[in-house]
Amino acid sequence: MPYVAPLKDMLFVLNELAGMEQVAQLPGCEDATAETVEAVLHEHGKFCSEVLAPLNRSGDVEPSFWHDGQVTTSKGFKEAFKAFGEAGWMGLPHPVEFGGQGLPKTVATPCIEMLNSANLSFALCPLLTDGAIEAFMTAGTEEQKNTYLENMISGKWTGTMNLTEPQAGSDLALVRTRAVSQGDGTFKIFGTKIFITYGEHDMAENIIHLVLARTPDAPEGVKGISLFIVPKFLINADGTLGARNDVQCVSLEHKLGIKASPTAVLQFGDHGGAIGTLVGEENRGLEYMFIMMNAARFGVGMQGVGIAERAYQKAAAFAKERVQSRDLAGSAGAVTIIHHPDVRRMLMTMRSQTEAARALAYVAAAASDVGHSHADEATRKENQAFYEYLVPIVKGWSTEMAIDVASNGVQVHGGMGFIEETGAAQYYRDARILAIYEGTTAIQANDLVGRKTARDGGAVANGIIAQVRYTHQQLAGSSNADLIAISKQLALAATALEQVVGYVVANVKSDIKGVFAGSVLYLKLAGIVLGGWQLGRAALIAQEKLQSGQGDASFYRAKIGTARFFADHILAQADAHRVAIIEGSAGVLALTEDQF
Amino acid sequence: MPYVAPLKDMLFVLNELAGMEQVAQLPGCEDATAETVEAVLHEHGKFCSEVLAPLNRSGDVEPSFWHDGQVTTSKGFKEAFKAFGEAGWMGLPHPVEFGGQGLPKTVATPCIEMLNSANLSFALCPLLTDGAIEAFMTAGTEEQKNTYLENMISGKWTGTMNLTEPQAGSDLALVRTRAVSQGDGTFKIFGTKIFITYGEHDMAENIIHLVLARTPDAPEGVKGISLFIVPKFLINADGTLGARNDVQCVSLEHKLGIKASPTAVLQFGDHGGAIGTLVGEENRGLEYMFIMMNAARFGVGMQGVGIAERAYQKAAAFAKERVQSRDLAGSAGAVTIIHHPDVRRMLMTMRSQTEAARALAYVAAAASDVGHSHADEATRKENQAFYEYLVPIVKGWSTEMAIDVASNGVQVHGGMGFIEETGAAQYYRDARILAIYEGTTAIQANDLVGRKTARDGGAVANGIIAQVRYTHQQLAGSSNADLIAISKQLALAATALEQVVGYVVANVKSDIKGVFAGSVLYLKLAGIVLGGWQLGRAALIAQEKLQSGQGDASFYRAKIGTARFFADHILAQADAHRVAIIEGSAGVLALTEDQF
Repeated sequence: MPYVAPLKDMLFVLNELAGMEQVAQLPGCEDATAETVEAVLHEHGKFCSEVLAPLNRSGDVEPSFWHDGQVTTSKGFKEAFKAFGEAGWMGLPHPVEFGGQGLPKTVATPCIEMLNSANLSFALCPLLTDGAIEAFMTAGTEEQKNTYLENMISGKWTGTMNLTEPQAGSDLALVRTRAVSQGDGTFKIFGTKIFITYGEHDMAENIIHLVLARTPDAPEGVKGISLFIVPKFLINADGTLGARNDVQCVSLEHKLGIKASPTAVLQFGDHGGAIGTLVGEENRGLEYMFIMMNAARFGVGMQGVGIAERAYQKAAAFAKERVQSRDLAGSAGAVTIIHHPDVRRMLMTMRSQTEAARALAYVAAAASDVGHSHADEATRKENQAFYEYLVPIVKGWSTEMAIDVASNGVQVHGGMGFIEETGAAQYYRDARILAIYEGTTAIQANDLVGRKTARDGGAVANGIIAQVRYTHQQLAGSSNADLIAISKQLALAATALEQVVGYVVANVKSDIKGVFAGSVLYLKLAGIVLGGWQLGRAALIAQEKLQSGQGDASFYRAKIGTARFFADHILAQADAHRVAIIEGSAGVLALTEDQF
Repeated sequence: MPYVAPLKDMLFVLNELAGMEQVAQLPGCEDATAETVEAVLHEHGKFCSEVLAPLNRSGDVEPSFWHDGQVTTSKGFKEAFKAFGEAGWMGLPHPVEFGGQGLPKTVATPCIEMLNSANLSFALCPLLTDGAIEAFMTAGTEEQKNTYLENMISGKWTGTMNLTEPQAGSDLALVRTRAVSQGDGTFKIFGTKIFITYGEHDMAENIIHLVLARTPDAPEGVKGISLFIVPKFLINADGTLGARNDVQCVSLEHKLGIKASPTAVLQFGDHGGAIGTLVGEENRGLEYMFIMMNAARFGVGMQGVGIAERAYQKAAAFAKERVQSRDLAGSAGAVTIIHHPDVRRMLMTMRSQTEAARALAYVAAAASDVGHSHADEATRKENQAFYEYLVPIVKGWSTEMAIDVASNGVQVHGGMGFIEETGAAQYYRDARILAIYEGTTAIQANDLVGRKTARDGGAVANGIIAQVRYTHQQLAGSSNADLIAISKQLALAATALEQVVGYVVANVKSDIKGVFAGSVLYLKLAGIVLGGWQLGRAALIAQEKLQSGQGDASFYRAKIGTARFFADHILAQADAHRVAIIEGSAGVLALTEDQF
């Protein structure tokens, strides 16, 4: 099944919803002209379609494998990663001074989506490397930056995030890996890390592990965690590779999906201690790790969009080919199944959620760029707060959505969907990890409730809801029946979200368990309201374009139809979430432990 | 992970909701006394836990395999099936005159659930054999019954259903397999059948294929399909096995789940023609196949309940063991994750839907028994109609629910859920087929809209809604706050369902595509309303028992809590379904084919 980048929708979202033009005016973003962006997306899409997409199914069938401490990745992955680095794709969003292209996040985001549509397992390697680069940029010394960045940005070396241990998954307070100072600026690292994505592989000359560990006198809990650089091969003063470090891959996991990507168990220090150097200050490791993690969380949200898009493309293509049963409205013989209303319903469920999540994520990416680079501080702050509110939603909602979309994709294929050769099942398996790694949906929801809503008394959330209401007013004033129907559901949904934000703020202290019983539902509610908001904005613009006779009328009509579907089928679920959150905690907490 | 049959809930549902006592008074059901039922369930549960559950994961890891036309099933399956037959479990619901135990469907249903909880792949073999037995009982001649039934009921031989062909999946009008009369009462069969569950295996001495095919002069479409018996080994006049018939297993499918169960491609007649005999009359094959299929559809619904129960048990056990993060309400150190509200929410989502679907299915089974055996014709008719309305819901809703529950089960396990060794991922993979085979959810929904709702102008549906309203009134009159809360959501949900039934009946002719655009949503709506109704009934009974001080108070309190959860979290979704059905068809049908 080929992958074709949805460039038309990507460019529509960038230009019409995310404000690409404004982003290109930010200091440092001047290179991101309309022409450049279109060319970059076009070329990247081509690379993804031609080089990476063909390796997706073969990588699933022949996963990477471990032998005697070495990991051999799936056929073609090594060559593809080399080509990826050489073409400059690894450096797309990274600083020019270290060999990157310095393009804004707004441009990198659709590229990340394409990468994940084409080959989720492959895409994890650059995703983790991006996170490590981000950590170096934030907390690394000049020496560390000079030592590592250029080779990571060129794709010569890759990066990993070493957080999880057998007893410490979501709860990093339980990390036990030890780091003992050698008095010479280096530390010896001892411990076991699990679930390390691309923790060992043959696609790069060196692997730069960023490892959470505790120094001997560190405080308990998360306040005693430091971040260390532990390269697979030590680096000589002249930049060449030195001795093999004492970090060993002892096994790979046998997983439900993303099988081509090696998920390693790493053993540090079994032969005297792995040599590491501190990043930033001692005991501030979690803070730095969150920098990597926030970038990675947004990236995982894009994995959701990417896999949803691919699953949709495959299902739509199958529905246009597969002949089965007569048309309900009457036909002589059997027709392609896209004629059947329930197949349409499934395809629209897939398409509308994918487009909504894409729009929300690109808008978030633009806010991140403005938040970083705008000349005006108030504008920066406002955009940064907007972006930070959206990160857990982009991560949590897009990934839960992707699981649902991939499942619908299997269903569209009927019995063929259950046969591995068809390929739809792989998306269903691959997508399942997205709501788990880089923080489960519940962890995202904790962030949304605690840091992003309760902390400011709902100020940012209510500010966004006011923007939703503005879009609702514009839609309500339209003469188009679809736009009016969208406005109706958007208004109801906005009210539901507003009530939930009020409930969260009012009760988070007095009834903390009751509020957190609805935390994931609040995240999902926010996702559908804000996704619906973006599709509402899209419908307004599409309607304007149609009225003025500009552009591709078929694309704009489809956009309005998709937004209409989302309103009646997805936005309409908002009030049920409100009920479950505000009235439903009693049921969540009703049973005693032994009653389970 | 061990499986423990939920006997307490099963017996509660049988005795308090399904009316086991009344079923035991039906002619022919007198053996099903309370003591017998309890003993049967206990023994069957033991067999499932001890013999079948331990083979579930090993069968997934080492699937059945094909070599040179022969299929070797997973280790232990052959011996387990022998023990299953010898213990009399294969004969549980089948006629005493052919060696069965003649127990009512109401008793067989929890047994089928246990079988599927323990080992879905294994359970498919008896499920298909049950269907074939049912077809013989309905349309077979005395000679056919005498030739086949005893050996099938003892488990010596097994049965299959041969419907699907590469071009004919949901659409049986496209069946091409040919049957040519030999003038001696036999036919020669030629054609290819795919997706044949247990189409070839080593667990029985003979395999009795029931095959849909066309005679040369048959009318086109579904009215020209006949049903044939094609045994793997021909049967001599004295009942011994004769020559190998001309049916060959040419390959097995490589599937997402249920890997231990062989899914065969069967080639009939490549060497001169497979010898078959007609079942019943020519061209009435689809009718007979529907008998098998209706039994099988209900059975697949029970597979949904079974896999959901198993996934729930596993997730609950993990949540009580896994230590991670502090209690939100404050604790010195990390606690088991069952303390965390969102884990509770997921477990309650799993548990409440499983219990609701179980209750609805057992109630349906009892109605089937009454519909078959009650002395009074009007009572029979009424119960049969009730049962037939429920079959597509039990099949469609329970299986969609099971996919959701299994996905939640993975999520409860966090990263461990994605690792195959844990076992949660197997349920997620296995469950995915349930909404596809024996008629996809859309096919069930077609049945619900067409034959079960539109045909009688919504009479049966509205009769059921009146019963829901009666339960609502009883709940509303309670002094228990939980019961009052349940009554509120039940009333709203009943109104939504009533409006949808009215909409379907009023518009199915004038706007057939619009109505069918919401068919699956109508099925899901009916599932949650009727499932919620049963949990409402259960809560009323639990409350009575608590007030009178009878029985296990903890069980009854948990039942009320579970019903309360279902009301606020699942029943509350009813109105969103109503909106999507009644207002949402425009969006479903908005795009032209080329816009996809």
